[in-house]
Amino acid sequence: MKAAIIGGGVIGGGWAARFLLNGWDVAVFDPDPDAPRKVDAVLSNAQASLPALSDTPMPEMGMLSYATSLADAVRDADFIQESVSEQLDLKHRVYAEIQRTAPDTPIGSSTSGYKPSQLQEGATNPATIFVAHPFNPVYLLPLVEVVPSPASDAALIESVKETLRGIGMYPLHVRKEIDAHIADRFLEAVWREALWLVKDGIATTEEIDEAIRMGFGLRWGQMGLFETYRIAGGEAGMKHFLAQFGPCLTWPWTKLMDVPEFNDELVDLIAGQSDAQSGHHTIRELERIRDGNLVGFLRTLKERDWGAGRVLNAHDARRRETLVQPDAAGAPMVMAHMQVLPGWIDYNGHMTESRYLFASSETTDAFLRHIGAGLDYVEGGHSYYSAESHIMHLGEAKLGDRLTGSIQVLSADEKRLHLFIRIERDGAPVATIEQMLLHVDMKAGRACPASPDVLARLMPIRDAHAALPRPETTGRHVGQRKS
Amino acid sequence: MKAAIIGGGVIGGGWAARFLLNGWDVAVFDPDPDAPRKVDAVLSNAQASLPALSDTPMPEMGMLSYATSLADAVRDADFIQESVSEQLDLKHRVYAEIQRTAPDTPIGSSTSGYKPSQLQEGATNPATIFVAHPFNPVYLLPLVEVVPSPASDAALIESVKETLRGIGMYPLHVRKEIDAHIADRFLEAVWREALWLVKDGIATTEEIDEAIRMGFGLRWGQMGLFETYRIAGGEAGMKHFLAQFGPCLTWPWTKLMDVPEFNDELVDLIAGQSDAQSGHHTIRELERIRDGNLVGFLRTLKERDWGAGRVLNAHDARRRETLVQPDAAGAPMVMAHMQVLPGWIDYNGHMTESRYLFASSETTDAFLRHIGAGLDYVEGGHSYYSAESHIMHLGEAKLGDRLTGSIQVLSADEKRLHLFIRIERDGAPVATIEQMLLHVDMKAGRACPASPDVLARLMPIRDAHAALPRPETTGRHVGQRKS
Repeated sequence: MKAAIIGGGVIGGGWAARFLLNGWDVAVFDPDPDAPRKVDAVLSNAQASLPALSDTPMPEMGMLSYATSLADAVRDADFIQESVSEQLDLKHRVYAEIQRTAPDTPIGSSTSGYKPSQLQEGATNPATIFVAHPFNPVYLLPLVEVVPSPASDAALIESVKETLRGIGMYPLHVRKEIDAHIADRFLEAVWREALWLVKDGIATTEEIDEAIRMGFGLRWGQMGLFETYRIAGGEAGMKHFLAQFGPCLTWPWTKLMDVPEFNDELVDLIAGQSDAQSGHHTIRELERIRDGNLVGFLRTLKERDWGAGRVLNAHDARRRETLVQPDAAGAPMVMAHMQVLPGWIDYNGHMTESRYLFASSETTDAFLRHIGAGLDYVEGGHSYYSAESHIMHLGEAKLGDRLTGSIQVLSADEKRLHLFIRIERDGAPVATIEQMLLHVDMKAGRACPASPDVLARLMPIRDAHAALPRPETTGRHVGQRKS
Repeated sequence: MKAAIIGGGVIGGGWAARFLLNGWDVAVFDPDPDAPRKVDAVLSNAQASLPALSDTPMPEMGMLSYATSLADAVRDADFIQESVSEQLDLKHRVYAEIQRTAPDTPIGSSTSGYKPSQLQEGATNPATIFVAHPFNPVYLLPLVEVVPSPASDAALIESVKETLRGIGMYPLHVRKEIDAHIADRFLEAVWREALWLVKDGIATTEEIDEAIRMGFGLRWGQMGLFETYRIAGGEAGMKHFLAQFGPCLTWPWTKLMDVPEFNDELVDLIAGQSDAQSGHHTIRELERIRDGNLVGFLRTLKERDWGAGRVLNAHDARRRETLVQPDAAGAPMVMAHMQVLPGWIDYNGHMTESRYLFASSETTDAFLRHIGAGLDYVEGGHSYYSAESHIMHLGEAKLGDRLTGSIQVLSADEKRLHLFIRIERDGAPVATIEQMLLHVDMKAGRACPASPDVLARLMPIRDAHAALPRPETTGRHVGQRKS
């Protein structure tokens, strides 16, 4: 699949990175000779952060090319995304030129302000032009507002939404076109109020940022406005909340009926305060800090399958379907594919010690699911518990390394399961783990035989693995000299 | 220390929980007979989440009592927080009654709308009354807007800010009083715009929430408005951003100059959409989901020492100072105090396997810092690497359990360090770890002698520990039968 990215700034670069890292080829067109440098900078940020969101191996990255003409960029493209500056006549000229080469290809616009019907004016094929408004950083934030006009092709819009889901995004279908769509109307409202607070000397830019990120900003990353207020209403419900707070609306709190005069004095005031607040970090540093924080937030939501985390889990599930399943037996079974994430790194820059055991647990858990002793089985009151483990550290895994976890069954009976786990990078072990598990009745708190179903799946693997060479580090105690 | 909480709703309950879990005694006064039930519900939520933010042991929880009169509640209190409903005359009556018993005690008000000068009107001692406006959930979100008036006692305000830091909050000193302080002005602006979008049929409550939490909400949890836009401006800086986007301010995007008519039709529309969106969860479930997400976000920021995470790290550091230091030698040295956090739990409800090794690493890291081989030493190019570990699982740690990690040096020479780590709960081991570490030259990638300074601290401990009994599980291999 090929995406054409028209306009190579921060937003265009973000789109390019998202498509590339999801396996699409990308052709960028931007007459600015500085565009490749800008796109590469965004791509480098994306490569440092986006893979950390994935719990399945990423596809091979697509090919990035810089086209020398708009026609070359859009030829054979499956999707075209326009991110040129916010001038309507410029956008119209771009669409006319695109449609001379690619009259039927979907054209999304990153515009934050224009309505799709404005974009479509005078086009050869208005039905293929729509708003696909993303949020910076485009490679990490899932939201994209998809806004059609009445002239849009409904089937094309549905297929566009599927394309956007395919690169891990959350397309929010805005059913009625409106200036600035939805999210930016809120940003605009807050921005105006913030300018007043700075201008009137009530708060500095730093104080305003703290007022947001120490409080309601944290709430809004995981629930929006209404769900948050629903909770505030308590068991009495949303109507109670509305009855209580509705009247406040007429209080003369906000100054939003006015627009502050945007003169040099205000610009200097804001820019000066912003320098004092953030000037000790370069923009590149701030981007990396922001991206690290966003990855952490998104992983939090992933663990809980909530909000943006649900979008990421669905994206993983879609990718996992295309992965090969482990071979049944006769060789150590590759049960887990992992990538070393930023949160797995210690102050030495290496994968932190306990993560080797974590990788082992992921592998063992996948094996237990494979033999029918997964979550459902545990909910029935039985489980395999680790009794004892021996870890040999044989190499140093680093950020971004792709690891596999494989299982060799050393021995097994009704109650005991003796495993050898290899954590490998490029076929060479970085750690091995020898482990004894006991099958337990969780309620009684003691060992008991596994169910016949589990044993029926486990024993053929044990028998097949009996023919494998025994790993030389088994039966070893800590500090034992090599023989 | 004793706090008096006047008004026992969701906000008063949140204050009570925050003070209690930080070791203060709390007296609540609220004439509503249902208040104890409400406060207990909030406290139960707080107990399930707040300890998960702490990396140092929490202090013993304070005593909670329900006073039968306002005078009883405030007598001998060090801090009084008023969270009664938003009626100015009621607040005035409450302050008058408080000051008959406690004329000099600081009185913070949770008011979201009134200015401190309004609260102070007619008071016996206006200088002690100020705004301390928190954000729900009060026990998790650090922000509290502290707003004095010109009549306030500046020294008292400084001491109040120190008190609030002492319970883990971030006091934002609002220098000029203004209706609704700072943060709620933004919430009000967004709320009005959201009501218009729902009323005009542009978006449902659910679509608005997704527009927030899939995009800019995630940004605002870690940087505010200005730092985010500073990045958007790129290397060209804040002035460039302002020049580019300033003119948009006069575009007719938001409808905020108007207030929608707040009639039954609008209330029904919003309440109905909210039910469709969130009605499959009870309010209690939503609270738990929200708190879990917030804990995850806050721990993300803690790991990066950024935003709200810095506040929490500073709070931990303050508490850590009061902890006893480990005894130098002659017995296994207790090096780490830990509490089992929600993120450490597996689907069995027990501490997940790899966290036992994590607890061991925390203990070893503290020991390495103790002998002068901490982060500074690593930055000089040398470090101790784990070569091999053997874990015995001896018990099941559960959510909230307090664990200690102790070190016994089994043997040590210039290059090798053989440790035995006990992870204990109430003095009984839940796991032991036998571990061999090698001292390495990180650049050369091979073992080398530790520095004389490190050895000078390590060897006396080794010699003292030589007299300790050798733990019976040392030298054991996986699956070895007990002798």
